[in-house]
Amino acid sequence: MTSRLLLLGAGRSASSLIQYLLRHAPTENWFLTVADVNPAHLAPVLAAHSQYARAVPFDLANEAQLEELVSQADAVISMLPAALHPVVARACVRQGRHLATASYVSPEIRALHEEAQAAGVTLLMECGLDPGLDHMSAMRAIAHIRARGGVVTSFKSYCGGLLAPAAEGDNPWKYKFTWNPRNVVLAGQSTAKFLENGLPRFIPYQQLFARTETLTVPEYGDFEGYANRDSLSYRAPYGLEEIPTILRGTLRRPGYCAAWHALVRLGLTDDSVNLDNPETLTWAELVAAYLPASHIPHLDLAQRTATYLGLNPTGEEMGRLNWLGLFSDRPVGHAQATPAQLLERLLAEKWQLQPHDHDLIVMQHLFEFELDGITHRLTSSLAVEGDDATHTGMAKTVGLPLGMAVRRLLRGEVPQRGVLIPVQADLYEPILEELAADYGIRFHEEEA
Amino acid sequence: MTSRLLLLGAGRSASSLIQYLLRHAPTENWFLTVADVNPAHLAPVLAAHSQYARAVPFDLANEAQLEELVSQADAVISMLPAALHPVVARACVRQGRHLATASYVSPEIRALHEEAQAAGVTLLMECGLDPGLDHMSAMRAIAHIRARGGVVTSFKSYCGGLLAPAAEGDNPWKYKFTWNPRNVVLAGQSTAKFLENGLPRFIPYQQLFARTETLTVPEYGDFEGYANRDSLSYRAPYGLEEIPTILRGTLRRPGYCAAWHALVRLGLTDDSVNLDNPETLTWAELVAAYLPASHIPHLDLAQRTATYLGLNPTGEEMGRLNWLGLFSDRPVGHAQATPAQLLERLLAEKWQLQPHDHDLIVMQHLFEFELDGITHRLTSSLAVEGDDATHTGMAKTVGLPLGMAVRRLLRGEVPQRGVLIPVQADLYEPILEELAADYGIRFHEEEA
Repeated sequence: MTSRLLLLGAGRSASSLIQYLLRHAPTENWFLTVADVNPAHLAPVLAAHSQYARAVPFDLANEAQLEELVSQADAVISMLPAALHPVVARACVRQGRHLATASYVSPEIRALHEEAQAAGVTLLMECGLDPGLDHMSAMRAIAHIRARGGVVTSFKSYCGGLLAPAAEGDNPWKYKFTWNPRNVVLAGQSTAKFLENGLPRFIPYQQLFARTETLTVPEYGDFEGYANRDSLSYRAPYGLEEIPTILRGTLRRPGYCAAWHALVRLGLTDDSVNLDNPETLTWAELVAAYLPASHIPHLDLAQRTATYLGLNPTGEEMGRLNWLGLFSDRPVGHAQATPAQLLERLLAEKWQLQPHDHDLIVMQHLFEFELDGITHRLTSSLAVEGDDATHTGMAKTVGLPLGMAVRRLLRGEVPQRGVLIPVQADLYEPILEELAADYGIRFHEEEA
Repeated sequence: MTSRLLLLGAGRSASSLIQYLLRHAPTENWFLTVADVNPAHLAPVLAAHSQYARAVPFDLANEAQLEELVSQADAVISMLPAALHPVVARACVRQGRHLATASYVSPEIRALHEEAQAAGVTLLMECGLDPGLDHMSAMRAIAHIRARGGVVTSFKSYCGGLLAPAAEGDNPWKYKFTWNPRNVVLAGQSTAKFLENGLPRFIPYQQLFARTETLTVPEYGDFEGYANRDSLSYRAPYGLEEIPTILRGTLRRPGYCAAWHALVRLGLTDDSVNLDNPETLTWAELVAAYLPASHIPHLDLAQRTATYLGLNPTGEEMGRLNWLGLFSDRPVGHAQATPAQLLERLLAEKWQLQPHDHDLIVMQHLFEFELDGITHRLTSSLAVEGDDATHTGMAKTVGLPLGMAVRRLLRGEVPQRGVLIPVQADLYEPILEELAADYGIRFHEEEA
């Protein structure tokens, strides 16, 4: 019997997911409906697969259409923005259809747990990269440690969407946008909280990018990690309620964080105030507006900025700021904006991914565990480069685990109902196996 | 003919307003209705005035009651929280009744301008202290400068709700709460913007309390001022569109800002993250959680904090932090809270106004103006102490200008309709005269 599969949203990050679904549709006996606000770009992709795939135009504001599409499917995958998932999930529960997404369980989704269970519906969330592959790989490592009788005492986990070394070029930040630019500019604007040796640790935003750790990933060299907002919420789902040390973080290439810290200290990442600026304001004028009135008028702006921030005027941090054009006479080009909006506009140009650039996904888990009275260290690392501008590392690592999770779901291999994340071995093991066997996406483990 | 006056909200800060209204009710031929959620406390106040005043219980959620009360009045004064003013203002416009408040013109109130004009209704806003007396006194000074042919080139204006010197006692902050504690803890959590010598100036939150100016007020000595969020919005209503320098700020006693800056840098004023803390967490544990892991384990917490913040361990800033009990084993007493909530709870105790404490309102305007080719400086200062715990400086300076504005309104001396703030001489001059003549509330001017 044919299983009817509905994919909502087919933006850039859905490319590898769609390829995966088309690859398996004939053998799994799926009929795939891809519903997108603008499905024209799907025609060439689906052309050779018309006997088991179609694209339809879809407007989420049209609730009747959503309801109808969901009712005609056996399972739904949503690649829509996460904020739209509650609407989709409620339709799925009403129509008795399973749902899979790569997004976090929000409070609204969590609230649907019992209703979904009663309706026999699985809401399979957090099945992409981060969240997704992070859960699967960490839980596999934790399960292996436990099977040997070990007790995990420290778990630090980092992930980053970065650039393949060739794409880093002469960009001193070694970073371009492979993900939502606004989220990158506003990253960390809260207090980060984690645990270290049984004690709570808090880092306020204005210190976050100054307190990094260095990590080394085989074949890719060094990275630096800054702490994510909330590392504590991972204890319960991972069964690590008593763990003394837990930290989740985001990876950048060395030097990025110190230079970003300078932008934070200047005030350029604030998104809470409209500067009432004209679009003709220059970047040099904007930066000057943040400096205290000069008592050393003969210094140029870059020197004054270095003095104010306590940075070496010819050092790497100032080099990165200068490379962005912060001290130039170029207009900010956007009137009545917040500093964060202006910075995002500038970075969107400076950090624009070029068609020939390949991205790089890096994930690393660092465990310490007690076994036979000895402290062991286990590092599990993943690095995935994009194949091309369409099948990026991001698209592969978000889309493939999600597609594989849905395959399990449609095969009836996911017996749980209600809201679910992939922390059970019966769900994540086949996915990790398939990623390694069919796509070469595998974690490299080192124990010391 | 009797004028019917409705006062909505009779909290502590309405004491001097009610006294003023009762004083003038017999001669002005007013009948006053005071509507409050809990009017019991008004009985002794109104007892001797029952022929021209009454109290009624009032629930703002009861829209029918609001509509009825407004319809039975000729003018309405709202001392309700500012967020509730749009509901009241819309009722006033519908019923064709004038309204006066001591709150800022919000976008919702501004949107009622034309509708109010069409209904012949005056929405007289910003008639308290700040906003209120600041507009009146600044506009009077500006008008005098202009009348002499001067051109204002710099306008800085500061206001603070502080303590009479006797109430400062041995509190090293020389500050207690005379106003909403939450607003004090969250003060300045945005980028401050102002103009200096024709150039925009921005100060991000994490620098705000480090960039203060010192002011001297006759008979009261020195104060320090930090910049308010938005000084630019005062240019248009004051007719100062071309002014090169404009700054609005908040006053504290010297030393407060440097110590508050330390709290900001530690991260204790953040209100965006729930710390997941138990109520038994101690203040020492909380502060320790913000410090990087110690590399100097023999130092005690206060010393480590001083080292981290670059402060003198025996200096005034650390003295103020220590006085708050930040390094003590006292529990924070509130589980699952933000740092700002915990700090507010601590300060509410440490900075609690005592029954015998008198407060102090300080306002100072500093003008520079060009006249006959010479730069002149004019300083206009106000200091008002509270009479007692009921008729505080705050209650007097908020309530009396508001009462006087309503008196003008009911006498038909305010011809303007629509949304209005007191920047016209025909409105503010009689109020400033009455404040000086009847209450000794007068600005002291010095020109150099």
